Amino acid sequence: MKATGIVVEYNPFHNGHQLHLNKARELTKSDVVIAVMSGSFVQRGEPAIIPKWERTKMALAAGVDMVIELPVSFATQHATIFAEESIRLLNTLHIDTLFFGSEHGVSEDFSAAAKTVVENEAAFNEAIQLALGDKKTSYARAYTEAFTRLFGKELLDLTKPNNILGFHYALAIQKQNPSIALQTMPREHSGYHDAEASHDYIASATAIRKLLLAGNLEEASRYLPDSSIEVLNNYRGPFLSFEDYWPLLKFRLIQASSDELEGIRGVSEGIQNRMQLAAKKAHSFSDFIEIMKTKRYSNARLQRTALQILLNAQNTPPAEPYIRVLGMSKTGQKYLSLHKKNISLPIVTTVSKAEPSLLKEDLRATDIYTLINGLEDYQAGDFHTPPILTL
Amino acid sequence: MKATGIVVEYNPFHNGHQLHLNKARELTKSDVVIAVMSGSFVQRGEPAIIPKWERTKMALAAGVDMVIELPVSFATQHATIFAEESIRLLNTLHIDTLFFGSEHGVSEDFSAAAKTVVENEAAFNEAIQLALGDKKTSYARAYTEAFTRLFGKELLDLTKPNNILGFHYALAIQKQNPSIALQTMPREHSGYHDAEASHDYIASATAIRKLLLAGNLEEASRYLPDSSIEVLNNYRGPFLSFEDYWPLLKFRLIQASSDELEGIRGVSEGIQNRMQLAAKKAHSFSDFIEIMKTKRYSNARLQRTALQILLNAQNTPPAEPYIRVLGMSKTGQKYLSLHKKNISLPIVTTVSKAEPSLLKEDLRATDIYTLINGLEDYQAGDFHTPPILTL
Repeated sequence: MKATGIVVEYNPFHNGHQLHLNKARELTKSDVVIAVMSGSFVQRGEPAIIPKWERTKMALAAGVDMVIELPVSFATQHATIFAEESIRLLNTLHIDTLFFGSEHGVSEDFSAAAKTVVENEAAFNEAIQLALGDKKTSYARAYTEAFTRLFGKELLDLTKPNNILGFHYALAIQKQNPSIALQTMPREHSGYHDAEASHDYIASATAIRKLLLAGNLEEASRYLPDSSIEVLNNYRGPFLSFEDYWPLLKFRLIQASSDELEGIRGVSEGIQNRMQLAAKKAHSFSDFIEIMKTKRYSNARLQRTALQILLNAQNTPPAEPYIRVLGMSKTGQKYLSLHKKNISLPIVTTVSKAEPSLLKEDLRATDIYTLINGLEDYQAGDFHTPPILTL
Repeated sequence: MKATGIVVEYNPFHNGHQLHLNKARELTKSDVVIAVMSGSFVQRGEPAIIPKWERTKMALAAGVDMVIELPVSFATQHATIFAEESIRLLNTLHIDTLFFGSEHGVSEDFSAAAKTVVENEAAFNEAIQLALGDKKTSYARAYTEAFTRLFGKELLDLTKPNNILGFHYALAIQKQNPSIALQTMPREHSGYHDAEASHDYIASATAIRKLLLAGNLEEASRYLPDSSIEVLNNYRGPFLSFEDYWPLLKFRLIQASSDELEGIRGVSEGIQNRMQLAAKKAHSFSDFIEIMKTKRYSNARLQRTALQILLNAQNTPPAEPYIRVLGMSKTGQKYLSLHKKNISLPIVTTVSKAEPSLLKEDLRATDIYTLINGLEDYQAGDFHTPPILTL
């Protein structure tokens, strides 16, 4: 069985994802599509708008064959770790091709860039550190500068969010298993960051979340496949944003000592002290981010750091990776039983039977995620919900 | 000027307090009554029902001449520390007499008991440890047993809350300055712990808080002097209980590691692990206490430990004591200027001018206290509010 891997958040699953999913199967001529998906919290450093179980249902209904959870300690990190660990899981599951969307859209350029960077890794890293040296340059900008320095031209525009993710997927493949094929498709429509919907039936997840958070399910539905709409119609919980967790984050920023916060993943350069002062002044999470904003720190980076504080994620090596199966189609189930013996990471289908240290951070993250009113049905769900299987 | 000290919480100031205050002045023939009062959180391990500034207004309006805040790291501790540090502040302010209410009501017995215990301290402490050794006996019970062992009879019933506080006042005076006279009056009416009001115009603070929390201000008013009613009529904030802070405490119990909690003041014998499990199950603070309850731990002790976790109070030596003036009558102001030169602790009237390390815990506690909706006007109040002065 030929398998294609994709890295997704499905926050929520929309028409653009459906297009991408169909192309992934069609262009790679695969029998199985395996999605590595973020769980309760996503890479921008935010809670997912709906629980991962609902997003798993959406994915399966739309045609994904296997949904694997990217552990929270990887899912909420910057592109390098996020991509490396996503590829690690997909590689462990023996995918033949990685399929992804990018602004750039030319597969060969990603492979070539990754190859050159891996072959000149020291020089590349040095160039990044050099660009970061002035303490003002953002990480995205530093990457682009290092890139231009290495290639003499801007091969890929790494300030574009999907290009940088794609580049890191390509890098990870180059390092972990260069025999995995790499295929990208151009993202023609709404950009990842566009807040407003501007196309007939395609809108960015950001724009769709904005509609859902404003209670405009009807308008949002234009951009969602029927399968997602059905899941949303059956969903009884709230749509979540970081604002819901702001009282908890504010409390912790006021309660903690600077020393305690210094031990949190992603905290550096004394940013915790500025955060503690900002927390006292801010009236909302967006207010807090506004107060904290500088050229140096992107919103995503600030949010990710704030999220690590919310989750009390210590800056220690994350736990070992594992394969957490959230859901499978019949084809996915067949694929897993075929490969079961050759999968080198622990497979977790029933949490209560798994090695406890493995899922510690994930269980805590979901316990915190479900503290919000209206999510009572999902409390302790991580522990008791078996994978969703479709027939 | 003759000065009498009292130790109070005024949570809120009621008719019983008025009686006690009048007696304090009358029986000791004093010119000045100085009250050491808990601030944002009280000795039972709870938030005060209204902010300390409102309770200071009540105290001054009722005739107290000087209100001094007992720092939170002493105010929320068991009777020994609570009493020792209250007496330390009053002794520093050169009181002649300590006046307090007790179930027992005979001043001489408290003095005699304290003297004997101080003279036989090693034997007394040994007897307490012996009683506690079976891991089932409560602290109150252990004190009573040690007491009976020492005196051959039950001189004071130390399971009664005001007797045990009085005994610890007497002990502290015996150790710090035996020249302070000690005068008690019997508490004739409602017991400290009575939840229901049963007398015409006297009810316990517990019963009054229950009425206020139920929104029954009219019924509560029967038990309050006009001066308190006026303060309450002008108060625009909510009446507070630990339930308001439950979402924050639950979050922290879920978020923290067992190791982090082990470093919190009052945490011992692995109680943090039981608390972390209970937090996941409990739907409210009272539910949480119900789940946690054992013979060994009194509700007050559980609440105090939970409160230290809420406040993130580390089990390190508390900061140096200081005299924080919350309010003064004209007489109080005169008394303070007379004695200013002979007061051996730092006097804090303007927080922003004080040594920062001194008030760190108190500022944080009030920052946490004021996180609740409706208390916005009191945020940062600790920093900016000058003492309330009456003319």
